[in-house]
Amino acid sequence: MSESELSVPAVPNARDAVRALRPSLIREVANAGFGVDDVLPFWFGESDRVTPAFIRDAASAALSAGATFYTHNLGIAPLRAALASYVSELHGSTSPDQIAVTSAGVNALMLAAQLVVGAGDRVVAVTPLWPNLVEIPKILGAHVETVALGYGEHGWQLDLDQLLAALTPDTTMLMINSPNNPTGWVMSRDEQRAVLAHCRRHGIWIVADEVYERLYYEDGDGPARTAPSFLDLAARDERVICVNSFSKAWLMTGWRLGWIVAPTALMDDLSKLVEYNTSCAPAFVQQAGIAAVEQGEAFTRDLVRDLKASRDHLVKALASVPGIDVKAPPGAMYLFFSMPGATRSLELCKAMVREVGLGVAPGSAFGPQGEGFVRWCYACDTARLDAGVERLKRFLALHGK
Amino acid sequence: MSESELSVPAVPNARDAVRALRPSLIREVANAGFGVDDVLPFWFGESDRVTPAFIRDAASAALSAGATFYTHNLGIAPLRAALASYVSELHGSTSPDQIAVTSAGVNALMLAAQLVVGAGDRVVAVTPLWPNLVEIPKILGAHVETVALGYGEHGWQLDLDQLLAALTPDTTMLMINSPNNPTGWVMSRDEQRAVLAHCRRHGIWIVADEVYERLYYEDGDGPARTAPSFLDLAARDERVICVNSFSKAWLMTGWRLGWIVAPTALMDDLSKLVEYNTSCAPAFVQQAGIAAVEQGEAFTRDLVRDLKASRDHLVKALASVPGIDVKAPPGAMYLFFSMPGATRSLELCKAMVREVGLGVAPGSAFGPQGEGFVRWCYACDTARLDAGVERLKRFLALHGK
Repeated sequence: MSESELSVPAVPNARDAVRALRPSLIREVANAGFGVDDVLPFWFGESDRVTPAFIRDAASAALSAGATFYTHNLGIAPLRAALASYVSELHGSTSPDQIAVTSAGVNALMLAAQLVVGAGDRVVAVTPLWPNLVEIPKILGAHVETVALGYGEHGWQLDLDQLLAALTPDTTMLMINSPNNPTGWVMSRDEQRAVLAHCRRHGIWIVADEVYERLYYEDGDGPARTAPSFLDLAARDERVICVNSFSKAWLMTGWRLGWIVAPTALMDDLSKLVEYNTSCAPAFVQQAGIAAVEQGEAFTRDLVRDLKASRDHLVKALASVPGIDVKAPPGAMYLFFSMPGATRSLELCKAMVREVGLGVAPGSAFGPQGEGFVRWCYACDTARLDAGVERLKRFLALHGK
Repeated sequence: MSESELSVPAVPNARDAVRALRPSLIREVANAGFGVDDVLPFWFGESDRVTPAFIRDAASAALSAGATFYTHNLGIAPLRAALASYVSELHGSTSPDQIAVTSAGVNALMLAAQLVVGAGDRVVAVTPLWPNLVEIPKILGAHVETVALGYGEHGWQLDLDQLLAALTPDTTMLMINSPNNPTGWVMSRDEQRAVLAHCRRHGIWIVADEVYERLYYEDGDGPARTAPSFLDLAARDERVICVNSFSKAWLMTGWRLGWIVAPTALMDDLSKLVEYNTSCAPAFVQQAGIAAVEQGEAFTRDLVRDLKASRDHLVKALASVPGIDVKAPPGAMYLFFSMPGATRSLELCKAMVREVGLGVAPGSAFGPQGEGFVRWCYACDTARLDAGVERLKRFLALHGK
């Protein structure tokens, strides 16, 4: 039989599970803006400010000093120690051998998923949600059930009974992101307590994505330093894996550095998975991470103060626009609000970028439960927010709204 | 039913497939050396020289300029363009939309595996082999068959018929690393041609790990610039995914930067997988990658000349030791040789580090087919190699060999 007698697919394809993964609808909107001269981008989850100089300088100093070699899979010892101190101060005693350094927060989520879920496993996620948490388990062959937050008088709220009912005994893992991207919803301490008790009862893993924990705007006696965390409630040796990142609290999105807090008993297996995914985070990036954790507290506090001011400014400006329903959420760095036309949010966002150069993210990018809303990242100065609101008003006027 | 009535495992475990992954035996040897004051480490696949200054400076300049934001999932356009030019010059016309930048070579292998294999799929790998290639598909639930190289008069050789027989029609993916870690074996052009024709016939994906392609010491008319590559033979739109890295040719191990050459038709799906694994490589690391590719050719040529001299020096020194059988392999940066006691290579290597401070890697770290050998990375100056050989002789003398 000659080679020519056999038919080979002309164009090779990825496997079906990968082809079925959702592409980024934010990128689809951004693509619609190609060729538009003057776009104001509020669509990505990223500040418009560069990483603070003291962190960049620490990386450059490490490069000069020759920190260009492989490191331990779980991270360099001084960074694990610095993170253990940081986490201990915020959430109670945590040791360096409960910390793993990762190549980004999303990489930490992938590692956590690889640790505990395989083909056929059942995963539950609370939505609307940054799509990565829902898609990652599917790469491993798991299936993901979603429980939707509800939107009402008090903003976004969890129906706790609905979540507990979804957490059936055959569930392997709950993925929960609080403060939440895109809604800004923050899970309460009582809700966390109930979920933890339920998951303990059934042996369900909790993977908590807490990368926005410092971007929390509620205050009791004084400004809270973090949102409620599962680390405040859980023992360090139970089925709770907390994921964090340097991206938000220290404006280090482009550095791809994160960490995991997990039981010491998991660390040997986690170390193997790090080896087989990225082997380690870059050596000089880890050195910069030490500077962020050890010298960055004043910076983070100022950042949170600025973000709160931006949030309040944008809520006020948008609330004055007829047809927009917006509430100030307690955490993260987004407003997730309804507006005329948002029931087809992808088409709306494409039209806004094309017609008035306003770049916001469609709610449907965060799952079907996000349809009817748009996400606006307010991590910038108020003048830029005002310019954006003017464009939004112009768009609505153009369409007779 | 109260909570106390239910039994919850005291210590949480990773899933079975992850617990079954092989830990690094090199690390086990290194751990045996803790407390030994003066270890000469030849066990890792890493030069003892820092990354060249012009590359470190490019990263620092990018940090100063504020390159601290997210980038495109597939890499910044100038790096993809620079890599396309580089690959085109070495292996024939390749366009930027056939290039994906990754967070290390091992990350590229993980992404390639995620693209094409899932639970239950059959994967074939040629061994002895860096364990990562064999373990990665297992994380995705695939099973891996191995085909062993043979060691004989001419060093390490492939039994081509045996490999083709293992590549049954129900095989999804072949993983092949040439130049090979640990043996230094290089697949010949004719072998590549036969394997490619066979895999075309059966629709089998070839994932070629070619990170050592520049570390190739054969010369015809003049020094060859690379080992034979599947990219020399394959069209750019067929089932061939070539993985490469900045680690070896530019001494950038600690940077975690790599790339993939793959069909354009796969890039949308690959982009999603990058998003869900690390989202992108760090922005300033990618800028340094441009400097390496565009300004690094003279450096790489000098490096390869130095490595060849080190290889020849170490082969000569070891060949004079009674009981050692060593041949100069055509590629990579290792000697993989037999010596007295190597039939239990893990125990042997632990004893050598403990007793004489000589750090080499056990052959069993590269699969059962590597047992009976040890791996010595010669990427250092000849004085250090001589000091290592003296220690090896001392060890053999201590044991009456």
